[in-house]
Amino acid sequence: MKIMIEKDFEAMSETTKNILFGHMSQDKRVNLSITAGNTPVHVYKKMVEIVKDSPNYANVHYYNFDEVPVAGQKEGITITDLRKLYFTPATIDEANIHPLTVENYAEQDKRLAMDGGLDAMLIGLGGDGHFCGNMPTTTSFENLTYKIKVTGEEPWFVPDMMEKDMEFVTMGPVSVMRVKHLILIVNGEKKAEMVKNVLQGPVTEEFPASILQLHPNLTVILDEAAASKLDR
Amino acid sequence: MKIMIEKDFEAMSETTKNILFGHMSQDKRVNLSITAGNTPVHVYKKMVEIVKDSPNYANVHYYNFDEVPVAGQKEGITITDLRKLYFTPATIDEANIHPLTVENYAEQDKRLAMDGGLDAMLIGLGGDGHFCGNMPTTTSFENLTYKIKVTGEEPWFVPDMMEKDMEFVTMGPVSVMRVKHLILIVNGEKKAEMVKNVLQGPVTEEFPASILQLHPNLTVILDEAAASKLDR
Amino acid sequence: MKIMIEKDFEAMSETTKNILFGHMSQDKRVNLSITAGNTPVHVYKKMVEIVKDSPNYANVHYYNFDEVPVAGQKEGITITDLRKLYFTPATIDEANIHPLTVENYAEQDKRLAMDGGLDAMLIGLGGDGHFCGNMPTTTSFENLTYKIKVTGEEPWFVPDMMEKDMEFVTMGPVSVMRVKHLILIVNGEKKAEMVKNVLQGPVTEEFPASILQLHPNLTVILDEAAASKLDR
Amino acid sequence: MKIMIEKDFEAMSETTKNILFGHMSQDKRVNLSITAGNTPVHVYKKMVEIVKDSPNYANVHYYNFDEVPVAGQKEGITITDLRKLYFTPATIDEANIHPLTVENYAEQDKRLAMDGGLDAMLIGLGGDGHFCGNMPTTTSFENLTYKIKVTGEEPWFVPDMMEKDMEFVTMGPVSVMRVKHLILIVNGEKKAEMVKNVLQGPVTEEFPASILQLHPNLTVILDEAAASKLDR
Repeated sequence: MKIMIEKDFEAMSETTKNILFGHMSQDKRVNLSITAGNTPVHVYKKMVEIVKDSPNYANVHYYNFDEVPVAGQKEGITITDLRKLYFTPATIDEANIHPLTVENYAEQDKRLAMDGGLDAMLIGLGGDGHFCGNMPTTTSFENLTYKIKVTGEEPWFVPDMMEKDMEFVTMGPVSVMRVKHLILIVNGEKKAEMVKNVLQGPVTEEFPASILQLHPNLTVILDEAAASKLDR
Repeated sequence: MKIMIEKDFEAMSETTKNILFGHMSQDKRVNLSITAGNTPVHVYKKMVEIVKDSPNYANVHYYNFDEVPVAGQKEGITITDLRKLYFTPATIDEANIHPLTVENYAEQDKRLAMDGGLDAMLIGLGGDGHFCGNMPTTTSFENLTYKIKVTGEEPWFVPDMMEKDMEFVTMGPVSVMRVKHLILIVNGEKKAEMVKNVLQGPVTEEFPASILQLHPNLTVILDEAAASKLDR
Repeated sequence: MKIMIEKDFEAMSETTKNILFGHMSQDKRVNLSITAGNTPVHVYKKMVEIVKDSPNYANVHYYNFDEVPVAGQKEGITITDLRKLYFTPATIDEANIHPLTVENYAEQDKRLAMDGGLDAMLIGLGGDGHFCGNMPTTTSFENLTYKIKVTGEEPWFVPDMMEKDMEFVTMGPVSVMRVKHLILIVNGEKKAEMVKNVLQGPVTEEFPASILQLHPNLTVILDEAAASKLDR
Repeated sequence: MKIMIEKDFEAMSETTKNILFGHMSQDKRVNLSITAGNTPVHVYKKMVEIVKDSPNYANVHYYNFDEVPVAGQKEGITITDLRKLYFTPATIDEANIHPLTVENYAEQDKRLAMDGGLDAMLIGLGGDGHFCGNMPTTTSFENLTYKIKVTGEEPWFVPDMMEKDMEFVTMGPVSVMRVKHLILIVNGEKKAEMVKNVLQGPVTEEFPASILQLHPNLTVILDEAAASKLDR
């Protein structure tokens, strides 16, 4: 694992954007999977400036790694967020966007294998140690892409839109281990303890992201606050 | 994971040899790590016929993945066995052999990184679920190459030459996950139950090889007997 | 370039088969392109024995690299020959066979890029120095996959079925340079002079295969006769 | 080939820097070869800001691709220029710098193979179509790293410091074709014609850089002026 500690959120975002462009600028099909949420907001703002209306990145394909469906809506939370933050302002061609859904999740690992695998995946870290939709108590390390049903008694924070009996889908630990370059970004002091747990503690399903210590090519980009509890 | 079931020990050995030659025949430096023991005996017999005195494989380097020192002897059990089975009869140049020792183990992961990483590793499976020197009760999934001291109270089979307080070294789960192509060979009915445990059961340190389910490019080659308890 | 000299046609075929199985046995989609003709006949005979009715190689996809259409027939010479020698006896699933045709050739490079690129290509050498359908006088090194019209005045041997004004298609030098592992097999004394020309002489469009000296991962497998004029 | 056209020198430099950081930020040894001269000056200025005193890039090794010795000086023109522009201000550890010299050039290709090969090479384009030290009239496409003696009658511009009978060394076309990602940067209107010649004209030793059309993973980054004569 390579840990890069940047001075603040802005520097973390700049470094992350550069790493993604390193992949995207090669002369071959590049398959990316990128995270929704707050952590990458500045990464995408920077990327939009470069990718918008550019002919240079038609070789890049985007795959979702998790999805939470919303009752009465055609698309789920993740893809909706990614469209708003990146796909729409960056004018990404719809043919290059590959959503994950409750309907197609069982084919996700095969589809990725057929398309040559993921070159890079950008993920964040949950305050409870989750990554993608791999939550404490619902994750088994031997999972490929799988479906989880909300019981309403989860020990982890359940967002308001996740009602009891609702199902969501996520790429599991085995699927994520196959990504050629895994990029984990975390910022802020309130995640500092969990950063230490998952990067320097034991590998345990209690903190699912601890399994990422086993990834063969993991780059972790932290701001100073998120790195503040690490043994250096 | 790709599971290949061959009809017998001979067919398993032939397939394994072919896979290794696929790597060795490329026009680049190829770094291999190969197992000692009984399982690969026919693999090496076949390889010796091809490699002995051949100018074609000078690009192949060999790294040990574990070692058990022997009191009063210059070299340990693993390298001694590999020399007998393969290095000596195959006339491998000493400059292409990179032993692991109790003295140099702490540099093993860095040395491999500096040399471009392992292209392939051939391993076997212990009847107790161990792989390399990763034994039940002494393995933590977050280990790189590490040293273990024999307590004399191990739940696993301790060979006669392993006395109390003796130390041995092994590449750990994190190190093995970095190998580009991992090849696991198992034969015989008495390992059939453990094959099922580690390939189709939960990932648990109780059966260390269960972690191999997470490897991004694992080929398992079994004879019919070893595969007899798998869900197919 | 790595040159492997085997004692005879049989040994050349055995080594070639092993290299191909090295690729095919990985746990990922593997894209191969294999040659028709006489040189690989024993390679395919050996492969059929292993692949026929086996569940182990469903991950392997086959792409043609050239094609000569035949008037009044649905499929061309190359694919017809490959079906006879390998695809049919090896029971390859039709979904894994990707023919090249006069109709679809303009999409070949893009299709390959979208499918993750070719992992390996097996080719032969023409007595006139051609490779794939890259013939002396019709090849430009800057070609991707292209179409050639037979003028009837070719300096190279034109098979009977190639009539004046007939068109054929082939992957060009740029396309072949993108293959991750290129495997060239040649046997027999009558090609020995051309082997020397293309492997140890100047790079020139007069002998199109001389460009292969620039391939980053080329394995050449020769029998003794074909290697007899090489400087060693 | 992937051609990226940026609006000016600054944008070209920014994109180039990002691509290099994409490589440098992975969790593995990264071998780079970077060009001296005027074209990359802003690239290095940007890189120095990030790399200087940073612990993040100790995994990056630098290899020279050509060298012109200077009478009476310990080091040649290229390495001296690179030290001034990048190695010294970026505080690169001497152990990570691998100079090419008139003395060690014959081992360059083997050394690179032993070190795992070059992950990326950044090159410029000469006004006469040269790349690295591959000059018109002295380049043969079949060259690995080689030595050239100045005759004083070169058709190409000979810098003042290159006296008659002086020798210089360069990685040749075969060596450059082995680089995993080749990055070519060109700016300015006065090179626009040559950009068109080498990227869209025939492959010919008259314009050595035309051979780069055959590289399997080439990214070309141009400013608008350098791209002004390309067929788009």
